[in-house]
Amino acid sequence: MTENTPKENKRIVSGMRPTGPLHLGHYFGVLKNWINLQETHQCYFFVADWHALTTEYADPRRIKGFVPELVKDWVAGGLDPEKCVIFQQSQVKEHAELHLLLSMLTPVSWLERCPTYKDQLTELAAKDLTTYGFLGYPVLMASDILLYKSGFVPVGQDQLPHLELTREIARRANHLYGNFFPEPQALLTPDAKLAGLDGRKMSKSYGNAIGLSEDPATMKKKVMGMLTCAKRARLADPGDPKECNLFPYHELLTDPARLPEIVEGCTTATWGCGDCKKLLVESMNAFLEPIRDRRQAFDKDPNLVGDLLASGNDRARQVAARNMDALRKKLNFNF
Amino acid sequence: MTENTPKENKRIVSGMRPTGPLHLGHYFGVLKNWINLQETHQCYFFVADWHALTTEYADPRRIKGFVPELVKDWVAGGLDPEKCVIFQQSQVKEHAELHLLLSMLTPVSWLERCPTYKDQLTELAAKDLTTYGFLGYPVLMASDILLYKSGFVPVGQDQLPHLELTREIARRANHLYGNFFPEPQALLTPDAKLAGLDGRKMSKSYGNAIGLSEDPATMKKKVMGMLTCAKRARLADPGDPKECNLFPYHELLTDPARLPEIVEGCTTATWGCGDCKKLLVESMNAFLEPIRDRRQAFDKDPNLVGDLLASGNDRARQVAARNMDALRKKLNFNF
Repeated sequence: MTENTPKENKRIVSGMRPTGPLHLGHYFGVLKNWINLQETHQCYFFVADWHALTTEYADPRRIKGFVPELVKDWVAGGLDPEKCVIFQQSQVKEHAELHLLLSMLTPVSWLERCPTYKDQLTELAAKDLTTYGFLGYPVLMASDILLYKSGFVPVGQDQLPHLELTREIARRANHLYGNFFPEPQALLTPDAKLAGLDGRKMSKSYGNAIGLSEDPATMKKKVMGMLTCAKRARLADPGDPKECNLFPYHELLTDPARLPEIVEGCTTATWGCGDCKKLLVESMNAFLEPIRDRRQAFDKDPNLVGDLLASGNDRARQVAARNMDALRKKLNFNF
Repeated sequence: MTENTPKENKRIVSGMRPTGPLHLGHYFGVLKNWINLQETHQCYFFVADWHALTTEYADPRRIKGFVPELVKDWVAGGLDPEKCVIFQQSQVKEHAELHLLLSMLTPVSWLERCPTYKDQLTELAAKDLTTYGFLGYPVLMASDILLYKSGFVPVGQDQLPHLELTREIARRANHLYGNFFPEPQALLTPDAKLAGLDGRKMSKSYGNAIGLSEDPATMKKKVMGMLTCAKRARLADPGDPKECNLFPYHELLTDPARLPEIVEGCTTATWGCGDCKKLLVESMNAFLEPIRDRRQAFDKDPNLVGDLLASGNDRARQVAARNMDALRKKLNFNF
């Protein structure tokens, strides 16, 4: 068994698929956590473009445009390339090599029993996902994590089975070849999911999302059109913030000192939902403005995102190459 | 549908797993055919070391030593590095990348129905081969072939299903991404299988093989101990070359002009099996001597095999890199 002592290995690896612009749901669900982690851990954040192929293989042409946009969203949102390594999976070929090596020792049954596998097959029934690559994407995920000998992986509760599979693969490799991979520990992401404007899961395809780079006018229109608490059919009807779709936005975006005032106004019907929305528009502008500002740096310098990725890819490659070298030696497969 | 006109694409790819020294069974079953093909085709012959991991992943440490020995056997046997490209799979990383890309579009069902898959699971029951990599080894094979846009693949009858799978994968990729891969055609290997000294399949593990680098004394001892036709219990009993285990060796190794004489001596009981064996020892020495001679070049220059592989790897990498570049463009996945 491999033990990780946090002080010795505070390296973290995590990725996102480049499938479209980020919205507030991504920010509060994942990115905000990454931004905190870059202060305390050695972080490797990657654009999971090869992973995107597991579901987008039939039409991969759109992925390319999403890659730089995702990086812009990350940096505009608060990732600092001085504090973390930002790179692109497909530009570090060692991911493919380790995936091939780990595929040899991973039982098919481990993959078939992965709880998200059959769920996704059903959920994405419109796409033909009965492919070898889709079955094996936890092996690719294990490669992403183990390639950097990551000690920790930030995950949500629902991704724990994947991480457990990575740990099983690490244990099997260590058993066969001698201790090499640390067994990465879960860093459970605090559950701060933000629902969409209509209360369903926030998703661009539902049209209920506010993008990280949403312009002020569109944002205002979306917020002013939000559904609120069903109890407040008339202005004089008192509402209940706990049942309101809008209040969680205040909790995340508005100055906490003002929350009691909002709760009182709502429950005593002394202010209307319109007032409440106007305040949210203000809070959201205050939140989005620095993000818009940071994004402008990319508009001013068209080479910036490419340079940033090139440098991150180099840094990732150095670690990846070193670890692959060491692993090949372990297998007596170094030539 | 992609058509290959032989004159336009006479490129061939074929590999062998580095699992031990070559014997006469390998020579007459595969290598002799390769030696002929290098005269007429643009040949890429590779040491399939990643493939060896599909069955040897639990103890991969022995593979390394077999790699240079396999190359020595090839060149000693008659492959000419001036006429063909000799390289090592794991040293051309594009094989792993293409394997990952093709895994995305290959249905699991195609792999499960591959006739050799379940056969091998049963045959090699002592090894745990219920792994993801073993299920997917036809995808790796497809990558090996398609990476070089090979027009032809030399195969035995029993490997036709694998090649058909490669063709199906090529068709699916061409359908999704636009015409890119030629559909490789089978070059059926003339069926010249040489049985082992005891009549069973020739295999080092059966102890019934004569190695390509067998020394003369061991070879003689093995030949003189061969079982012959059961009809010739006594010298005076006439035999039947068609039922004799030794005669096929004469057909492959002895001057064809002498075959009638052997047949007559045997069927009329005018010479003994000992005479027949002595003649075979002569023929086999005549066959093995130039092989031994060519092998001495490697003993004299310990860098020779490494240099030869390094140069072949470079040549293979150039084609592989060019084809992967073009494929990435086709997918709009070039960064």
